[in-house]
Amino acid sequence: MLIVMEKLHTAENLEKVMQQVRELGYRPHVIPGAQSVAVGITGNLGPVPPELFTTLTGVKETIRVTKPYKLAGREFRPRNTEVRVGNAVFGSENLVVIAGPCAVESREQTLRIASEVKAAGAQVLRGGAFKPRTSPYSFQGLGLEGLKILAEARRLTGLPVITEAVDAESLHLVAEYADIVQIGARNMQNFSLLSEAGRLRKPVMLKRGMSATLEEWLMAAEYILTEGNDQLILCERGVRSFDTATRNMLDLGAVAVLASLSHLPVVVDPSHGTGKRGLVAPMAKAACACGAAAVMVDVHDRPAEALCDGPQAISPAELGSLVNSLRQIETAAR
Amino acid sequence: MLIVMEKLHTAENLEKVMQQVRELGYRPHVIPGAQSVAVGITGNLGPVPPELFTTLTGVKETIRVTKPYKLAGREFRPRNTEVRVGNAVFGSENLVVIAGPCAVESREQTLRIASEVKAAGAQVLRGGAFKPRTSPYSFQGLGLEGLKILAEARRLTGLPVITEAVDAESLHLVAEYADIVQIGARNMQNFSLLSEAGRLRKPVMLKRGMSATLEEWLMAAEYILTEGNDQLILCERGVRSFDTATRNMLDLGAVAVLASLSHLPVVVDPSHGTGKRGLVAPMAKAACACGAAAVMVDVHDRPAEALCDGPQAISPAELGSLVNSLRQIETAAR
Amino acid sequence: MLIVMEKLHTAENLEKVMQQVRELGYRPHVIPGAQSVAVGITGNLGPVPPELFTTLTGVKETIRVTKPYKLAGREFRPRNTEVRVGNAVFGSENLVVIAGPCAVESREQTLRIASEVKAAGAQVLRGGAFKPRTSPYSFQGLGLEGLKILAEARRLTGLPVITEAVDAESLHLVAEYADIVQIGARNMQNFSLLSEAGRLRKPVMLKRGMSATLEEWLMAAEYILTEGNDQLILCERGVRSFDTATRNMLDLGAVAVLASLSHLPVVVDPSHGTGKRGLVAPMAKAACACGAAAVMVDVHDRPAEALCDGPQAISPAELGSLVNSLRQIETAAR
Amino acid sequence: MLIVMEKLHTAENLEKVMQQVRELGYRPHVIPGAQSVAVGITGNLGPVPPELFTTLTGVKETIRVTKPYKLAGREFRPRNTEVRVGNAVFGSENLVVIAGPCAVESREQTLRIASEVKAAGAQVLRGGAFKPRTSPYSFQGLGLEGLKILAEARRLTGLPVITEAVDAESLHLVAEYADIVQIGARNMQNFSLLSEAGRLRKPVMLKRGMSATLEEWLMAAEYILTEGNDQLILCERGVRSFDTATRNMLDLGAVAVLASLSHLPVVVDPSHGTGKRGLVAPMAKAACACGAAAVMVDVHDRPAEALCDGPQAISPAELGSLVNSLRQIETAAR
Repeated sequence: MLIVMEKLHTAENLEKVMQQVRELGYRPHVIPGAQSVAVGITGNLGPVPPELFTTLTGVKETIRVTKPYKLAGREFRPRNTEVRVGNAVFGSENLVVIAGPCAVESREQTLRIASEVKAAGAQVLRGGAFKPRTSPYSFQGLGLEGLKILAEARRLTGLPVITEAVDAESLHLVAEYADIVQIGARNMQNFSLLSEAGRLRKPVMLKRGMSATLEEWLMAAEYILTEGNDQLILCERGVRSFDTATRNMLDLGAVAVLASLSHLPVVVDPSHGTGKRGLVAPMAKAACACGAAAVMVDVHDRPAEALCDGPQAISPAELGSLVNSLRQIETAAR
Repeated sequence: MLIVMEKLHTAENLEKVMQQVRELGYRPHVIPGAQSVAVGITGNLGPVPPELFTTLTGVKETIRVTKPYKLAGREFRPRNTEVRVGNAVFGSENLVVIAGPCAVESREQTLRIASEVKAAGAQVLRGGAFKPRTSPYSFQGLGLEGLKILAEARRLTGLPVITEAVDAESLHLVAEYADIVQIGARNMQNFSLLSEAGRLRKPVMLKRGMSATLEEWLMAAEYILTEGNDQLILCERGVRSFDTATRNMLDLGAVAVLASLSHLPVVVDPSHGTGKRGLVAPMAKAACACGAAAVMVDVHDRPAEALCDGPQAISPAELGSLVNSLRQIETAAR
Repeated sequence: MLIVMEKLHTAENLEKVMQQVRELGYRPHVIPGAQSVAVGITGNLGPVPPELFTTLTGVKETIRVTKPYKLAGREFRPRNTEVRVGNAVFGSENLVVIAGPCAVESREQTLRIASEVKAAGAQVLRGGAFKPRTSPYSFQGLGLEGLKILAEARRLTGLPVITEAVDAESLHLVAEYADIVQIGARNMQNFSLLSEAGRLRKPVMLKRGMSATLEEWLMAAEYILTEGNDQLILCERGVRSFDTATRNMLDLGAVAVLASLSHLPVVVDPSHGTGKRGLVAPMAKAACACGAAAVMVDVHDRPAEALCDGPQAISPAELGSLVNSLRQIETAAR
Repeated sequence: MLIVMEKLHTAENLEKVMQQVRELGYRPHVIPGAQSVAVGITGNLGPVPPELFTTLTGVKETIRVTKPYKLAGREFRPRNTEVRVGNAVFGSENLVVIAGPCAVESREQTLRIASEVKAAGAQVLRGGAFKPRTSPYSFQGLGLEGLKILAEARRLTGLPVITEAVDAESLHLVAEYADIVQIGARNMQNFSLLSEAGRLRKPVMLKRGMSATLEEWLMAAEYILTEGNDQLILCERGVRSFDTATRNMLDLGAVAVLASLSHLPVVVDPSHGTGKRGLVAPMAKAACACGAAAVMVDVHDRPAEALCDGPQAISPAELGSLVNSLRQIETAAR
């Protein structure tokens, strides 16, 4: 159960609620929210009578929660969360298109591709400055220098920027330079990083772990939400499977399931989700048709020279034609 | 390598080719085709010089094949295979809609739903007469009686009928009564059944096995093709995954990958692919947007009473509205 | 619930029981058994009061069954099933060793290896005559000729023989020539074949499907048991996974779980379970240590020339040394 | 390729080697080692002629490396790595037994269980002070207080202690109080944490990620080794699968494969690997039989009261009897 406090409650009101929870033998969790504070209860085996709390001063309402995730679920917030960044609104009726190079390789490459993806219709620029790589011997990104290049690309194009943070240190740098902080698949259960991201007051995009169930993913989201950051976006990027025909198996069913379980917007990454250039357009279209809030696409104008994931990048021209299709499918699928 | 014979070759011509293959230390495989006969070679480690065969009388051409599947691959047949059944053409530009009850439960139920799915825009009627069930204690279908009901539904509605065969005996019954013979996921590597289906002269739809790789699936298709039946349709119906949020994980990436690997049309079954009514429409739309040749949908007008898979059936009204969306997405996604 | 009839019940007694079940709105299933007949009930949502049946003439007892599989579960039969073939007893305290070539390739090869595996300590001879192969172009086995060779090997060595059946036709041939009929992984849910095998009065070994859950596997076993054949052995042979380091992932946890869920003996096949010769001995030892009833090992004296699965075959000498280790581990692990 | 420097090389010698690598167009990686420094080369597509380096002053030898992991592979170090902690030697002929509560819950609970596992034959004490939990509402461990309790348990029993670190901060605390630092499955690709652990001069145990391939796991190990910490132990703890019969699927084949790929010792955790008390003993025995360097077992004397993973804990008495079996199997399996 969640006990939502009035906006103007006192510290004393809150303490009474907490005490009441403890006296029942349960554990209270203070959950700061954008509007007000709520108190979550854990440890109860069955439903708790609401009147034990609604009669206390400063309590606005109680919400029954049947899932292990509380703040991420539709029970807590029936209406879609909308996350606004620049002109883009994640979670609205309109599909957002995020595009850019997998990695920031140089100032020239990034500025050039940034202009091209803008011209092709993208609304948010992607580009990795801190790259978590399977091998310690692979290119690990330009780091702070990469963030500065992204900031310059934003000034030039007006596009807001999304880029990944890989630890506490890079998280604060990314939060300073970028508009959306990405937490990657490999860090989906790096709970320290999640809590730290929850203490930011910046939009965060949380990618699904390699083989995370939807419940685990929503519980990871809960780590961020419970710290008070509700500017949260999820990103499906394919899961591990037994078939090597694609790099990952893109789980579009997850998009449709999450629409009923959660109020959070869901982005689809068909580039990492398939690992093959030729599959990016069909999978982006499919994502759009089944209700994704956004697609995020790797774009490179010289894929053979890309320092990271060249085989999955499409060209700026291909992006342009894809965006045209997506705008039509978006209307048709409504 | 495939050595394609002239349409009017003699038995002697063919024997010469076979002998040549054997003399090289390889194994020849005579592969009857719709147009003419081909000879496949196995056992060779590297490429075979074409001129060893193109110089023989009766040989039309040789085709280099780099995949373990020969007849199912694009190398062998670059253009899409089209399978015509009634007014439906699988593999053309237009999406085919297959709909009907999971199981034929009674004459009344089937005729009623058949009329409704026709009115809603379906072009092919589905309905199981032989049901392979995980438990021996579950409803196993009406068998021959079910086939007769389906035939009556076809007379009434004009819709061609697809239904599953589970062994050699039911295969021949199904071939007699239905327009398309379905081989289910559990029998995808029942090689005796596949070969038997290859000897039919009726369209066959082969569902992907529970955890079959695309290569294994195409090799299973090869068992049918190699017996001379090239009226073959594939059907993606979700694969096994670690997540219990959906019954199976619908692998739409497979649709896009198969479009490049194979000339065979690919149907998507969002009902079995997700197991949840609420996901059928979004996944059908996604399938359409990424280029599926058809969608196959469980429809029931009284799902709570369904003897099989009620939770995944949509209503005839929902089908009608879905078909409308699909017609628009089809155009938008082209 | 299972209603077990007295050994000497009348047809009328049985009919009364069936009628009683139907009057409660449930479905009765007559299940022939080695000792007597039982009636299974399906369709009930909660427990059924036993006294409704124990008071009827000819009823011996009722057994409450909480699992979807009835005859395969420990609830129905608390004591281990023992399957005797020659000197080997599957399900006793002593590990059975099955060994032989993956495929019967020729009379000479088979007789030679048969003698060698006997000398090395094997108690049962394996060898495939009907080979289900992923590709239609691979060696499919010698068929009936292979069965005759196996029968000759048995005469020569005294070892009972296990070999695979792939369809109804080969099933009856195998039952005629072999001592144990194997149903392979790809046919685990070929329910027609399972039912046919259930009507044999010969031991059957049912391999686990590529990605079958333990419950699905036990339900497949139920198809055989429910036809009255309780000479049934299960065989774990590795499941499909995301890692290509081994051909399959050998699930030894399944051996331990099945020991609590079921009374059926479980064989482990480390050869197909790993696909790598070097892993056969360590995995066979592990299988023995965690309580497998038997191990089944591919042995070839000229693996480079093997027509099937050469890379996973160990030599007769390696088998000898493995059997020695197994005999010691068996004692140590008790 | 790895270029191993003489123990007494000069900074100038090293710089010459680096320069030579760069002139060939490749990237040099200085890899500090226990004995001496090596230089790894990446970016080369084929083999590099050794004489380009063996002729330089200060170079001891070159080692050809065909795998993406260099320091973790047998090519680099053919002999087993041995990690000594207290009386335990991981990687020797003798199985090490690690046991203790899943979580440090209180001083009393920990000291009590520590004495009991020592008496039962354990050589290392486990116990979580920092607990990475799927839910933010679950018990997260006692933190620093827990570390102090573990240190006290070590003083009392003489057993060295292993416990998990979850981020940079806890890593340094754990390194101060414990004998082995554990990196958990969820952090297997938390590359910042791995590098930080690589800069410790304390043994580290790296658990396999939820669905990590062996190659990804060894690449993660490489992040630690490449920073100069070669006191590294791997731990197999089960991977994600499609079957819910066990919490994870314990991949014992991995133990045998790693024995050929890597020189690092491999521990098996049958408690987390199965999630079921009844499977711990059989799986520990199996792990021993196939060559694991150690087993790590959750032990609790009041499992019903455990704050974490009670259902998978065995009792101290069960541990005692298990250790006896393991000592016998160890000898039998050699």
